[in-house]
Amino acid sequence: MGDTPAVILLSGGLDSATALAVARHEGFRTYALSFRYGQRHEVELAAARRVADAIGVERHVIADIDLRVFGGSALTGDLAVPHHDRPEDLGNQIPDTYVPARNTIFLSFALAWAETLGAEDIFIGVNAMDYSGYPDCRPEYIAAYEQMANLATKAGVLGNQHLRIHAPLIALSKAAIIELGRSLGVDYSLTHSCYDPEPSGAACGTCDSCLFRRRGFAELGLDDPAAAAPG
Amino acid sequence: MGDTPAVILLSGGLDSATALAVARHEGFRTYALSFRYGQRHEVELAAARRVADAIGVERHVIADIDLRVFGGSALTGDLAVPHHDRPEDLGNQIPDTYVPARNTIFLSFALAWAETLGAEDIFIGVNAMDYSGYPDCRPEYIAAYEQMANLATKAGVLGNQHLRIHAPLIALSKAAIIELGRSLGVDYSLTHSCYDPEPSGAACGTCDSCLFRRRGFAELGLDDPAAAAPG
Repeated sequence: MGDTPAVILLSGGLDSATALAVARHEGFRTYALSFRYGQRHEVELAAARRVADAIGVERHVIADIDLRVFGGSALTGDLAVPHHDRPEDLGNQIPDTYVPARNTIFLSFALAWAETLGAEDIFIGVNAMDYSGYPDCRPEYIAAYEQMANLATKAGVLGNQHLRIHAPLIALSKAAIIELGRSLGVDYSLTHSCYDPEPSGAACGTCDSCLFRRRGFAELGLDDPAAAAPG
Repeated sequence: MGDTPAVILLSGGLDSATALAVARHEGFRTYALSFRYGQRHEVELAAARRVADAIGVERHVIADIDLRVFGGSALTGDLAVPHHDRPEDLGNQIPDTYVPARNTIFLSFALAWAETLGAEDIFIGVNAMDYSGYPDCRPEYIAAYEQMANLATKAGVLGNQHLRIHAPLIALSKAAIIELGRSLGVDYSLTHSCYDPEPSGAACGTCDSCLFRRRGFAELGLDDPAAAAPG
Protein backbone atom coordinates (compact mmCIF):
# COMPACT_ATOMS: atom_id res chain seq x y z
CA MET A 1 0.00 0.00 0.00
CA GLY A 2 1.00 3.62 -0.45
CA ASP A 3 1.58 6.11 2.33
CA THR A 4 -1.49 8.31 1.80
CA PRO A 5 -4.35 7.27 4.07
CA ALA A 6 -7.97 7.14 2.93
CA VAL A 7 -11.17 6.18 4.75
CA ILE A 8 -13.51 3.86 2.82
CA LEU A 9 -17.15 3.26 3.75
CA LEU A 10 -17.56 -0.51 3.50
CA SER A 11 -20.97 -2.15 3.77
CA GLY A 12 -19.91 -5.54 2.45
CA GLY A 13 -22.00 -5.07 -0.67
CA LEU A 14 -20.94 -5.15 -4.31
CA ASP A 15 -20.52 -1.39 -4.67
CA SER A 16 -18.47 -0.67 -1.57
CA ALA A 17 -16.19 -3.68 -2.24
CA THR A 18 -15.50 -2.18 -5.66
CA ALA A 19 -14.87 1.27 -4.15
CA LEU A 20 -12.35 -0.28 -1.74
CA ALA A 21 -10.59 -2.01 -4.65
CA VAL A 22 -10.44 1.32 -6.53
CA ALA A 23 -8.89 3.04 -3.50
CA ARG A 24 -6.29 0.29 -3.21
CA HIS A 25 -5.62 0.45 -6.95
CA GLU A 26 -5.04 4.21 -6.66
CA GLY A 27 -2.37 3.52 -4.06
CA PHE A 28 -4.10 4.62 -0.86
CA ARG A 29 -3.45 3.09 2.53
CA THR A 30 -7.03 2.05 3.29
CA TYR A 31 -9.02 2.41 6.52
CA ALA A 32 -12.38 0.67 6.18
CA LEU A 33 -15.41 1.80 8.18
CA SER A 34 -18.60 -0.22 8.69
CA PHE A 35 -21.60 0.37 10.93
CA ARG A 36 -23.75 -1.71 13.22
CA TYR A 37 -26.79 0.52 12.87
CA GLY A 38 -29.74 -1.58 13.92
CA GLN A 39 -30.08 -3.26 10.55
CA ARG A 40 -32.17 -6.41 10.61
CA HIS A 41 -29.27 -8.75 10.13
CA GLU A 42 -25.54 -8.94 10.68
CA VAL A 43 -24.91 -10.86 7.47
CA GLU A 44 -23.62 -7.73 5.79
CA LEU A 45 -21.09 -7.05 8.57
CA ALA A 46 -19.71 -10.57 8.11
CA ALA A 47 -19.41 -9.81 4.39
CA ALA A 48 -17.65 -6.50 5.18
CA ARG A 49 -15.09 -8.40 7.26
CA ARG A 50 -14.48 -10.94 4.46
CA VAL A 51 -14.11 -8.19 1.86
CA ALA A 52 -11.73 -6.17 4.06
CA ASP A 53 -9.58 -9.26 4.61
CA ALA A 54 -9.55 -10.24 0.93
CA ILE A 55 -8.81 -6.82 -0.57
CA GLY A 56 -6.56 -5.74 2.28
CA VAL A 57 -6.92 -2.85 4.68
CA GLU A 58 -4.72 -1.17 7.26
CA ARG A 59 -7.57 -1.27 9.75
CA HIS A 60 -11.29 -2.12 9.75
CA VAL A 61 -13.51 -0.42 12.33
CA ILE A 62 -17.16 -1.25 12.98
CA ALA A 63 -18.85 1.71 14.69
CA ASP A 64 -21.99 1.22 16.74
CA ILE A 65 -24.77 3.69 16.09
CA ASP A 66 -28.46 3.30 16.74
CA LEU A 67 -30.65 4.54 13.91
CA ARG A 68 -33.66 2.58 15.19
CA VAL A 69 -34.30 5.36 17.68
CA PHE A 70 -35.73 7.43 14.82
CA GLY A 71 -37.53 4.72 12.86
CA GLY A 72 -38.89 5.25 9.39
CA SER A 73 -37.12 2.63 7.25
CA ALA A 74 -37.49 -0.95 6.11
CA LEU A 75 -33.75 -1.47 6.68
CA THR A 76 -34.00 -0.74 10.39
CA GLY A 77 -37.02 -2.98 10.88
CA ASP A 78 -39.86 -0.46 10.95
CA LEU A 79 -41.35 -1.15 7.54
CA ALA A 80 -41.51 -4.18 5.24
CA VAL A 81 -38.80 -4.66 2.59
CA PRO A 82 -40.51 -4.52 -0.83
CA HIS A 83 -40.08 -7.54 -3.12
CA HIS A 84 -40.62 -7.84 -6.88
CA ASP A 85 -40.83 -10.73 -9.33
CA ARG A 86 -38.81 -9.14 -12.12
CA PRO A 87 -36.19 -6.39 -12.52
CA GLU A 88 -38.70 -4.62 -14.79
CA ASP A 89 -40.84 -4.02 -11.72
CA LEU A 90 -38.31 -1.70 -10.08
CA GLY A 91 -40.08 1.60 -9.54
CA ASN A 92 -39.08 5.23 -9.83
CA GLN A 93 -40.26 6.25 -6.36
CA ILE A 94 -38.03 6.41 -3.30
CA PRO A 95 -38.74 3.04 -1.65
CA ASP A 96 -39.18 2.17 2.02
CA THR A 97 -35.63 0.82 2.11
CA TYR A 98 -34.41 4.43 2.16
CA VAL A 99 -32.87 5.16 5.56
CA PRO A 100 -33.26 8.87 6.36
CA ALA A 101 -29.92 10.68 6.15
CA ARG A 102 -27.96 7.42 6.19
CA ASN A 103 -25.14 8.43 3.88
CA THR A 104 -24.92 11.81 5.62
CA ILE A 105 -24.44 10.03 8.94
CA PHE A 106 -21.98 7.49 7.50
CA LEU A 107 -19.91 10.21 5.79
CA SER A 108 -19.86 12.23 9.02
CA PHE A 109 -18.25 9.35 10.89
CA ALA A 110 -15.82 8.88 8.00
CA LEU A 111 -14.99 12.58 8.27
CA ALA A 112 -14.29 12.26 12.00
CA TRP A 113 -11.97 9.32 11.41
CA ALA A 114 -10.27 11.04 8.45
CA GLU A 115 -9.57 14.10 10.56
CA THR A 116 -8.12 11.96 13.35
CA LEU A 117 -5.93 10.06 10.86
CA GLY A 118 -4.90 13.21 9.01
CA ALA A 119 -6.49 11.73 5.88
CA GLU A 120 -7.83 13.99 3.13
CA ASP A 121 -9.60 11.28 1.13
CA ILE A 122 -12.90 9.50 1.76
CA PHE A 123 -14.35 6.88 -0.60
CA ILE A 124 -18.04 6.02 -0.84
CA GLY A 125 -19.52 3.49 -3.26
CA VAL A 126 -22.72 5.33 -4.17
CA ASN A 127 -23.98 5.26 -7.71
CA ALA A 128 -26.67 7.32 -9.37
CA MET A 129 -27.45 4.97 -12.27
CA ASP A 130 -28.73 1.53 -11.20
CA TYR A 131 -29.96 2.58 -7.80
CA SER A 132 -33.23 3.11 -5.98
CA GLY A 133 -33.55 6.88 -6.33
CA TYR A 134 -32.11 7.62 -2.89
CA PRO A 135 -31.43 11.38 -2.67
CA ASP A 136 -28.08 10.85 -0.97
CA CYS A 137 -26.62 8.94 -3.93
CA ARG A 138 -26.60 11.86 -6.40
CA PRO A 139 -23.53 13.78 -7.62
CA GLU A 140 -24.90 17.15 -6.44
CA TYR A 141 -25.27 15.73 -2.94
CA ILE A 142 -21.68 14.45 -2.88
CA ALA A 143 -20.38 17.82 -4.12
CA ALA A 144 -22.33 19.68 -1.42
CA TYR A 145 -21.06 17.25 1.22
CA GLU A 146 -17.46 17.85 0.17
CA GLN A 147 -17.92 21.61 0.37
CA MET A 148 -19.45 21.35 3.85
CA ALA A 149 -16.72 18.93 5.01
CA ASN A 150 -14.02 21.42 4.14
CA LEU A 151 -15.68 24.01 6.37
CA ALA A 152 -16.41 21.53 9.17
CA THR A 153 -12.88 20.53 10.02
CA LYS A 154 -9.60 21.94 11.24
CA ALA A 155 -8.41 21.71 7.65
CA GLY A 156 -11.00 24.29 6.67
CA VAL A 157 -9.71 26.73 9.27
CA LEU A 158 -6.01 26.13 8.93
CA GLY A 159 -6.15 25.97 5.14
CA ASN A 160 -3.50 23.26 4.93
CA GLN A 161 -5.69 20.40 3.70
CA HIS A 162 -8.45 19.81 1.20
CA LEU A 163 -10.88 16.98 1.84
CA ARG A 164 -12.12 15.02 -1.13
CA ILE A 165 -15.17 12.76 -1.21
CA HIS A 166 -14.44 10.16 -3.88
CA ALA A 167 -17.47 8.49 -5.44
CA PRO A 168 -15.77 6.52 -8.23
CA LEU A 169 -18.90 4.51 -9.13
CA ILE A 170 -21.36 7.38 -9.23
CA ALA A 171 -21.77 7.48 -13.01
CA LEU A 172 -21.44 3.73 -13.67
CA SER A 173 -24.17 1.17 -14.36
CA LYS A 174 -24.22 -1.91 -12.18
CA ALA A 175 -22.73 -3.92 -15.05
CA ALA A 176 -19.92 -1.38 -15.47
CA ILE A 177 -19.21 -1.51 -11.72
CA ILE A 178 -18.93 -5.30 -11.90
CA GLU A 179 -16.61 -5.06 -14.91
CA LEU A 180 -14.44 -2.54 -13.08
CA GLY A 181 -14.29 -4.68 -9.95
CA ARG A 182 -13.45 -7.82 -11.91
CA SER A 183 -10.61 -5.99 -13.64
CA LEU A 184 -9.27 -5.14 -10.15
CA GLY A 185 -9.64 -8.72 -8.93
CA VAL A 186 -12.66 -8.29 -6.65
CA ASP A 187 -14.16 -11.64 -5.61
CA TYR A 188 -17.88 -10.87 -5.63
CA SER A 189 -18.70 -14.22 -4.04
CA LEU A 190 -17.56 -12.61 -0.76
CA THR A 191 -20.02 -9.71 -1.00
CA HIS A 192 -23.58 -9.47 0.22
CA SER A 193 -26.11 -6.96 -1.12
CA CYS A 194 -29.51 -8.35 -0.10
CA TYR A 195 -31.88 -6.19 1.98
CA ASP A 196 -33.83 -9.14 3.33
CA PRO A 197 -31.75 -12.34 3.52
CA GLU A 198 -33.07 -15.79 4.47
CA PRO A 199 -32.34 -17.03 8.00
CA SER A 200 -29.49 -19.00 6.43
CA GLY A 201 -27.95 -15.74 5.22
CA ALA A 202 -28.76 -16.48 1.56
CA ALA A 203 -29.88 -13.59 -0.63
CA CYS A 204 -33.65 -13.36 -1.21
CA GLY A 205 -33.26 -12.65 -4.93
CA THR A 206 -36.34 -10.41 -5.12
CA CYS A 207 -35.56 -7.17 -3.23
CA ASP A 208 -34.46 -4.04 -5.13
CA SER A 209 -30.83 -4.61 -4.28
CA CYS A 210 -30.87 -8.26 -5.43
CA LEU A 211 -32.64 -7.30 -8.66
CA PHE A 212 -30.17 -4.52 -9.56
CA ARG A 213 -27.33 -6.89 -8.84
CA ARG A 214 -28.82 -9.78 -10.82
CA ARG A 215 -29.48 -7.52 -13.79
CA GLY A 216 -25.88 -6.24 -13.70
CA PHE A 217 -24.38 -9.72 -13.86
CA ALA A 218 -26.94 -10.80 -16.50
CA GLU A 219 -25.99 -7.88 -18.76
CA LEU A 220 -22.43 -9.19 -18.72
CA GLY A 221 -23.59 -12.76 -19.41
CA LEU A 222 -22.39 -13.83 -15.96
CA ASP A 223 -23.93 -15.63 -13.02
CA ASP A 224 -23.84 -13.80 -9.68
CA PRO A 225 -21.22 -15.76 -7.72
CA ALA A 226 -22.88 -14.80 -4.42
CA ALA A 227 -26.32 -16.07 -5.43
CA ALA A 228 -25.46 -19.69 -4.72
CA ALA A 229 -22.91 -19.13 -1.98
CA PRO A 230 -23.86 -19.11 1.68
CA GLY A 231 -24.07 -15.60 3.18
CA MET B 1 -46.69 24.41 21.79
CA GLY B 2 -47.42 25.06 18.13
CA ASP B 3 -47.98 22.43 15.50
CA THR B 4 -44.74 22.80 13.58
CA PRO B 5 -42.12 20.27 14.74
CA ALA B 6 -38.45 21.14 15.16
CA VAL B 7 -35.46 19.07 16.27
CA ILE B 8 -33.17 20.74 18.84
CA LEU B 9 -29.66 19.52 19.65
CA LEU B 10 -29.52 19.62 23.45
CA SER B 11 -26.26 19.05 25.32
CA GLY B 12 -27.47 20.32 28.66
CA GLY B 13 -25.13 23.31 28.47
CA LEU B 14 -25.94 26.99 28.60
CA ASP B 15 -26.04 27.51 24.84
CA SER B 16 -28.26 24.59 23.86
CA ALA B 17 -30.69 25.33 26.72
CA THR B 18 -31.03 28.85 25.31
CA ALA B 19 -31.51 27.50 21.77
CA LEU B 20 -34.31 25.24 23.04
CA ALA B 21 -35.97 28.21 24.75
CA VAL B 22 -35.74 30.20 21.51
CA ALA B 23 -37.38 27.35 19.55
CA ARG B 24 -40.20 27.17 22.11
CA HIS B 25 -40.58 30.95 22.04
CA GLU B 26 -40.89 30.84 18.24
CA GLY B 27 -43.78 28.41 18.66
CA PHE B 28 -42.21 25.13 17.55
CA ARG B 29 -43.23 21.75 18.90
CA THR B 30 -39.79 20.70 20.16
CA TYR B 31 -38.01 17.34 19.82
CA ALA B 32 -34.77 17.37 21.81
CA LEU B 33 -31.82 15.20 20.82
CA SER B 34 -28.84 14.38 23.04
CA PHE B 35 -25.97 11.94 22.58
CA ARG B 36 -24.15 9.44 24.73
CA TYR B 37 -20.94 9.64 22.73
CA GLY B 38 -18.26 8.32 24.99
CA GLN B 39 -17.78 11.59 26.81
CA ARG B 40 -15.96 11.24 30.10
CA HIS B 41 -18.97 11.86 32.26
CA GLU B 42 -22.74 11.62 32.15
CA VAL B 43 -23.25 14.80 34.13
CA GLU B 44 -24.18 16.67 30.99
CA LEU B 45 -26.86 14.11 30.03
CA ALA B 46 -28.45 14.56 33.45
CA ALA B 47 -28.43 18.31 32.81
CA ALA B 48 -29.98 17.76 29.36
CA ARG B 49 -32.82 15.81 31.00
CA ARG B 50 -33.41 18.57 33.59
CA VAL B 51 -33.40 21.27 30.92
CA ALA B 52 -35.77 19.33 28.64
CA ASP B 53 -38.17 18.83 31.57
CA ALA B 54 -38.01 22.46 32.67
CA ILE B 55 -38.38 24.13 29.27
CA GLY B 56 -40.75 21.50 27.93
CA VAL B 57 -40.35 19.16 24.96
CA GLU B 58 -42.60 16.80 23.04
CA ARG B 59 -39.95 14.11 23.25
CA HIS B 60 -36.31 13.81 24.37
CA VAL B 61 -34.17 11.12 22.73
CA ILE B 62 -30.66 10.17 23.81
CA ALA B 63 -28.87 8.45 20.91
CA ASP B 64 -25.92 6.15 21.56
CA ILE B 65 -22.93 6.67 19.31
CA ASP B 66 -19.34 5.74 19.93
CA LEU B 67 -16.87 8.43 18.96
CA ARG B 68 -14.12 6.87 21.08
CA VAL B 69 -13.46 4.42 18.27
CA PHE B 70 -11.66 7.23 16.41
CA GLY B 71 -9.96 8.95 19.33
CA GLY B 72 -8.30 12.34 18.98
CA SER B 73 -10.10 14.52 21.55
CA ALA B 74 -9.92 15.51 25.19
CA LEU B 75 -13.71 15.20 25.43
CA THR B 76 -13.68 11.51 24.58
CA GLY B 77 -10.91 10.72 27.00
CA ASP B 78 -7.89 10.52 24.69
CA LEU B 79 -6.20 13.77 25.62
CA ALA B 80 -6.12 15.96 28.73
CA VAL B 81 -8.63 18.79 29.10
CA PRO B 82 -6.67 22.07 29.21
CA HIS B 83 -7.15 24.30 32.28
CA HIS B 84 -6.38 28.00 32.75
CA ASP B 85 -6.23 30.31 35.73
CA ARG B 86 -7.92 33.29 34.11
CA PRO B 87 -10.28 34.00 31.19
CA GLU B 88 -7.49 36.13 29.69
CA ASP B 89 -5.54 32.92 29.13
CA LEU B 90 -8.02 31.56 26.59
CA GLY B 91 -6.05 31.03 23.40
CA ASN B 92 -6.76 31.48 19.72
CA GLN B 93 -5.76 27.98 18.67
CA ILE B 94 -8.17 25.09 18.24
CA PRO B 95 -7.81 23.28 21.61
CA ASP B 96 -7.71 19.55 22.35
CA THR B 97 -11.35 19.69 23.45
CA TYR B 98 -12.30 19.86 19.77
CA VAL B 99 -14.03 16.59 18.80
CA PRO B 100 -13.42 15.90 15.09
CA ALA B 101 -16.60 16.41 13.05
CA ARG B 102 -18.77 16.41 16.18
CA ASN B 103 -21.34 18.96 15.07
CA THR B 104 -21.44 17.34 11.62
CA ILE B 105 -22.29 14.01 13.23
CA PHE B 106 -24.82 15.56 15.63
CA LEU B 107 -26.55 17.50 12.85
CA SER B 108 -26.69 14.36 10.71
CA PHE B 109 -28.64 12.50 13.39
CA ALA B 110 -30.89 15.55 13.80
CA LEU B 111 -31.44 15.46 10.04
CA ALA B 112 -32.43 11.79 10.17
CA TRP B 113 -34.92 12.46 12.95
CA ALA B 114 -36.27 15.59 11.23
CA GLU B 115 -36.89 13.63 8.05
CA THR B 116 -38.70 10.90 9.97
CA LEU B 117 -40.84 13.47 11.81
CA GLY B 118 -41.49 15.51 8.65
CA ALA B 119 -39.79 18.46 10.37
CA GLU B 120 -38.10 21.19 8.31
CA ASP B 121 -36.40 22.96 11.22
CA ILE B 122 -33.29 22.03 13.20
CA PHE B 123 -31.87 24.18 16.02
CA ILE B 124 -28.25 24.10 17.15
CA GLY B 125 -26.79 26.34 19.86
CA VAL B 126 -23.41 27.06 18.30
CA ASN B 127 -21.90 30.50 18.60
CA ALA B 128 -18.96 32.02 16.79
CA MET B 129 -18.14 34.77 19.30
CA ASP B 130 -17.21 33.51 22.76
CA TYR B 131 -16.16 30.04 21.69
CA SER B 132 -13.01 28.01 21.32
CA GLY B 133 -12.39 28.46 17.60
CA TYR B 134 -14.00 25.16 16.62
CA PRO B 135 -14.42 25.12 12.82
CA ASP B 136 -17.91 23.64 13.05
CA CYS B 137 -19.30 26.64 14.97
CA ARG B 138 -18.90 29.20 12.14
CA PRO B 139 -21.73 30.71 10.06
CA GLU B 140 -20.20 29.55 6.75
CA TYR B 141 -20.20 25.98 8.06
CA ILE B 142 -23.86 26.15 9.09
CA ALA B 143 -24.81 27.59 5.67
CA ALA B 144 -22.93 24.81 3.85
CA TYR B 145 -24.55 22.19 6.07
CA GLU B 146 -28.02 23.53 5.27
CA GLN B 147 -27.30 23.41 1.55
CA MET B 148 -26.04 19.83 1.78
CA ALA B 149 -29.02 18.80 3.95
CA ASN B 150 -31.47 19.93 1.31
CA LEU B 151 -29.79 17.67 -1.23
CA ALA B 152 -29.45 14.75 1.18
CA THR B 153 -33.09 14.13 1.88
CA LYS B 154 -36.34 13.19 0.21
CA ALA B 155 -37.32 16.86 0.49
CA GLY B 156 -34.47 17.74 -1.85
CA VAL B 157 -35.75 15.31 -4.48
CA LEU B 158 -39.45 15.90 -4.14
CA GLY B 159 -39.06 19.68 -3.82
CA ASN B 160 -41.87 20.00 -1.30
CA GLN B 161 -39.80 20.97 1.74
CA HIS B 162 -36.91 23.23 2.63
CA LEU B 163 -34.75 22.32 5.60
CA ARG B 164 -33.45 25.14 7.75
CA ILE B 165 -30.57 24.91 10.23
CA HIS B 166 -31.31 27.56 12.87
CA ALA B 167 -28.30 28.83 14.81
CA PRO B 168 -29.95 31.66 16.76
CA LEU B 169 -26.91 32.27 19.02
CA ILE B 170 -24.24 32.28 16.34
CA ALA B 171 -23.55 36.03 16.40
CA LEU B 172 -24.11 36.59 20.13
CA SER B 173 -21.55 37.00 22.91
CA LYS B 174 -21.88 34.71 25.91
CA ALA B 175 -23.29 37.62 27.91
CA ALA B 176 -25.88 38.34 25.19
CA ILE B 177 -26.87 34.64 25.14
CA ILE B 178 -27.42 34.72 28.90
CA GLU B 179 -29.48 37.91 28.62
CA LEU B 180 -31.60 36.33 25.88
CA GLY B 181 -32.13 33.14 27.88
CA ARG B 182 -33.04 35.04 31.04
CA SER B 183 -35.62 37.04 29.07
CA LEU B 184 -37.13 33.71 28.01
CA GLY B 185 -37.11 32.31 31.55
CA VAL B 186 -34.23 29.84 31.24
CA ASP B 187 -33.05 28.59 34.65
CA TYR B 188 -29.30 28.36 34.14
CA SER B 189 -28.84 26.61 37.48
CA LEU B 190 -30.08 23.48 35.66
CA THR B 191 -27.42 23.63 32.96
CA HIS B 192 -23.94 22.15 32.91
CA SER B 193 -21.15 23.38 30.64
CA CYS B 194 -17.95 22.05 32.21
CA TYR B 195 -15.58 19.88 30.16
CA ASP B 196 -13.98 18.29 33.18
CA PRO B 197 -16.27 18.14 36.22
CA GLU B 198 -15.27 16.98 39.70
CA PRO B 199 -16.32 13.45 40.75
CA SER B 200 -19.20 15.17 42.58
CA GLY B 201 -20.42 16.62 39.26
CA ALA B 202 -19.41 20.17 40.21
CA ALA B 203 -17.91 22.37 37.47
CA CYS B 204 -14.10 22.68 37.53
CA GLY B 205 -14.18 26.44 36.96
CA THR B 206 -10.95 26.47 34.93
CA CYS B 207 -11.63 24.76 31.58
CA ASP B 208 -12.35 26.84 28.46
CA SER B 209 -16.07 26.26 28.75
CA CYS B 210 -16.20 27.27 32.43
CA LEU B 211 -14.15 30.39 31.71
CA PHE B 212 -16.33 31.57 28.83
CA ARG B 213 -19.38 30.98 30.97
CA ARG B 214 -17.96 32.74 34.01
CA ARG B 215 -16.93 35.73 31.91
CA GLY B 216 -20.43 35.96 30.39
CA PHE B 217 -22.16 36.12 33.77
CA ALA B 218 -19.50 38.52 35.11
CA GLU B 219 -20.07 40.94 32.22
CA LEU B 220 -23.72 41.12 33.29
CA GLY B 221 -22.76 41.61 36.95
CA LEU B 222 -24.28 38.21 37.80
CA ASP B 223 -23.07 35.10 39.60
CA ASP B 224 -23.30 31.85 37.64
CA PRO B 225 -26.19 30.02 39.32
CA ALA B 226 -24.70 26.65 38.35
CA ALA B 227 -21.30 27.36 39.90
CA ALA B 228 -22.48 26.59 43.41
CA ALA B 229 -25.19 24.07 42.53
CA PRO B 230 -24.51 20.33 42.46
CA GLY B 231 -24.16 18.93 38.95
